[in-house]
Amino acid sequence: MLTTIQEIYQSAEKLSQQEKIKVGGWVKSPIRQDKFIEINDGSCLKNLQLVCSPDLAEELKKINFNSSLIVSGKLILTPERTQSCELQIQQIEFINPVIEENYPLQKKNIPLKVVRDYPHLRAKTNYFLALFRLRHSVSKSIHEFFHQEGFYYVATPIITSNDAEGAGELFNVTTENKEPFFSKPGKLTVSGQLHAEALVQGLGKVYTFSPCFRAEKSHTTRHLAEFWMVEAEIAFIGLEEVINLVEKMIKKIINNLLINNILELEYFENYNQKEIITKLKKIVSADFKKVDYGESVKILDSASNQKKFVFNDIKWGMNLQSEHEKYLCQHFSGPVFITNYPADLKAFYMKNNPDGKTAACFDLLLPTIGELVGGSIREDSYQTLQEKADKQNLNTGGLSWYLDLRKTGYAPSGGFGLGLERLIMFLSGTENIRDTIAFPRYPHHLEF
Amino acid sequence: MLTTIQEIYQSAEKLSQQEKIKVGGWVKSPIRQDKFIEINDGSCLKNLQLVCSPDLAEELKKINFNSSLIVSGKLILTPERTQSCELQIQQIEFINPVIEENYPLQKKNIPLKVVRDYPHLRAKTNYFLALFRLRHSVSKSIHEFFHQEGFYYVATPIITSNDAEGAGELFNVTTENKEPFFSKPGKLTVSGQLHAEALVQGLGKVYTFSPCFRAEKSHTTRHLAEFWMVEAEIAFIGLEEVINLVEKMIKKIINNLLINNILELEYFENYNQKEIITKLKKIVSADFKKVDYGESVKILDSASNQKKFVFNDIKWGMNLQSEHEKYLCQHFSGPVFITNYPADLKAFYMKNNPDGKTAACFDLLLPTIGELVGGSIREDSYQTLQEKADKQNLNTGGLSWYLDLRKTGYAPSGGFGLGLERLIMFLSGTENIRDTIAFPRYPHHLEF
Repeated sequence: MLTTIQEIYQSAEKLSQQEKIKVGGWVKSPIRQDKFIEINDGSCLKNLQLVCSPDLAEELKKINFNSSLIVSGKLILTPERTQSCELQIQQIEFINPVIEENYPLQKKNIPLKVVRDYPHLRAKTNYFLALFRLRHSVSKSIHEFFHQEGFYYVATPIITSNDAEGAGELFNVTTENKEPFFSKPGKLTVSGQLHAEALVQGLGKVYTFSPCFRAEKSHTTRHLAEFWMVEAEIAFIGLEEVINLVEKMIKKIINNLLINNILELEYFENYNQKEIITKLKKIVSADFKKVDYGESVKILDSASNQKKFVFNDIKWGMNLQSEHEKYLCQHFSGPVFITNYPADLKAFYMKNNPDGKTAACFDLLLPTIGELVGGSIREDSYQTLQEKADKQNLNTGGLSWYLDLRKTGYAPSGGFGLGLERLIMFLSGTENIRDTIAFPRYPHHLEF
Repeated sequence: MLTTIQEIYQSAEKLSQQEKIKVGGWVKSPIRQDKFIEINDGSCLKNLQLVCSPDLAEELKKINFNSSLIVSGKLILTPERTQSCELQIQQIEFINPVIEENYPLQKKNIPLKVVRDYPHLRAKTNYFLALFRLRHSVSKSIHEFFHQEGFYYVATPIITSNDAEGAGELFNVTTENKEPFFSKPGKLTVSGQLHAEALVQGLGKVYTFSPCFRAEKSHTTRHLAEFWMVEAEIAFIGLEEVINLVEKMIKKIINNLLINNILELEYFENYNQKEIITKLKKIVSADFKKVDYGESVKILDSASNQKKFVFNDIKWGMNLQSEHEKYLCQHFSGPVFITNYPADLKAFYMKNNPDGKTAACFDLLLPTIGELVGGSIREDSYQTLQEKADKQNLNTGGLSWYLDLRKTGYAPSGGFGLGLERLIMFLSGTENIRDTIAFPRYPHHLEF
């Protein structure tokens, strides 16, 4: 294989002792001063400078922005310059120019709004190269975190007959045949949690990393019809331990970014996210606050006297609105876990607290984006679970297997769910969730 | 959190110095000799032996198979016995018995065929605990392999308007609303390859780990309607390098299993897979053969004189049947890459070889299961690609973005796809693909 630009910057001295190395990439700066060309091969954010002799310059003048190229040559150390090395081209092995009428992203610094119309070309722009690289690193950290903590990676089904929370509109899965493919109407999953709960009753600690779907016709910058969820489930656990696990995971993800992806973070900082690195460092060193829902309502009530919320009728039992969540993060200057919400506001599977009014649950609120993670201890009483489902008018006919888990040696269990794309929005400062995934799915679009 | 059984076996000496540790798990052997109970908590295949005093024995006699339990007590080293340590119970912290009428898997050694009807209880059986643990390790190795090789983990879409190969029946994605949700009819993806090809033209090396779907009404032991695929795509690569990468990956996966999951492999060996460990060791040390399709037809032709194949009309241009693939693995006593199949047998996106008849592609055949991996170099000529698609009567209207990649600085690229569940069948010896995934999806079933 070719030598990558990352390898070149990592081992420049060693590679400079070789007669010749071969490098491929896409042209990020066409020839200047009849001599210099910059290419990038995706392996890292930094480009490699190519230097050519006058006899090759003529040919290389034909090469336009984002053409692909393979060259061989000698690596020269240039410690006195900004870039620590450059490649003196001896031979052009391959050229494939861009046909400009087919390439709408010729210019530099094209607004994201325009790039969004060409998802198949996004990986040719610096912004999305940085963003996809960050998404990769976050995903990698999540897998590593769970492996270190002794979790098993499990596959929960995508096509299901269940609707985990009785919430949100579902996509149907059908075939052209008259005879149904499955025994029941198939839906695209909104959450793998219920199935993960079955698996944890034997495996002890499990997590999923899986696509989920909502058929809401939502045109906001915070919703996708198809998104990736990370869900964890742990047997023999209490609420505080789940909360501590979430805090540890978020900090690990950010720590890894600060170590491995500082170039990408600097890119976002220069792009439009002033002080994003400072913001992330602050989160890593913060103790995430833990505040009871009741307490958080009191704080909001005090604030409502001075600062008018749009939704200003603050009282126990209300749903926290986005403005309230943001206020609480401001109030505590950082991430906050709100715990023990009123049971009536939350899903049927969450365990009731002894007070009979609240559930053993939490949301993690982050500055600027609000809710990032939701979790709970699961209701372990068959009867209470059935009553809660009935109260929410859920059809539990198809969920008898889930209720039955409570009768077959059920171990108290708890867990949480995290929306990957929302996390990436927070970490990169990207303002539209459609930019956090390579081929976003949302209403009225499916060209690619 | 509780101390896990894995931690106990790893650090028995240290933990035996503590006054008390707390352990939870499910009962795998109810009380015997009024004294001994075995539990498992999922953290490893091995059980932990609990020992109780006579005063606790009365209470523990009520506990049945697979009840959940938390106990605290002192860890005692027992180097003279089979198990290196045991826990002397001081206190029973929690018991949740199995209600036997709700638990159809009471007995030991229940046939897999029966367990298959209760996927929500599978993780309570030793066979599936071993199998899910193996699936976890294989998935982990795959991610690690790609990270080490400098690949980016990308998300290709699940809902798509494309049919990657024009092959197989597709699931439709719809909503209850009259007005369509998307701009085009949505389908569940059969492969993320085409989208991965767009991303590699900038990122350089990408892989996916993602669910795929086929709506074939297939009732065999080798097909699922929902399965997981690993697909890799690499820019600036040739066929031989793709092949070498696949061989390296398979060997890494198996090597890691032999190091980290020997207990699970021994379990399968004792269950019904005689010599599976020897078989896997042989594969790790073998040089995978690389044989041209034309050559493989000659070998089959010679064999057809002696050994009658069911499909015995051996000639150039034929599809290799399962019996032929197995014969070729026998002939070479191990895994074989068959390369350069007739272009007409293969997908439109595979690059034509200079001979105009064959494609720059390969299948990896493994003993007992046949094809495990398929890969190719992608056609880089816009015109040839269009002609090949037309020849296969594909509607490329929706694929214009894919064809256009060839006009925007296209770098020669290649890659491969691997079906995760088929790999797990091979590695565990499991005979029915429905056992390799926690909640299998196949015709006429969707209870869970």
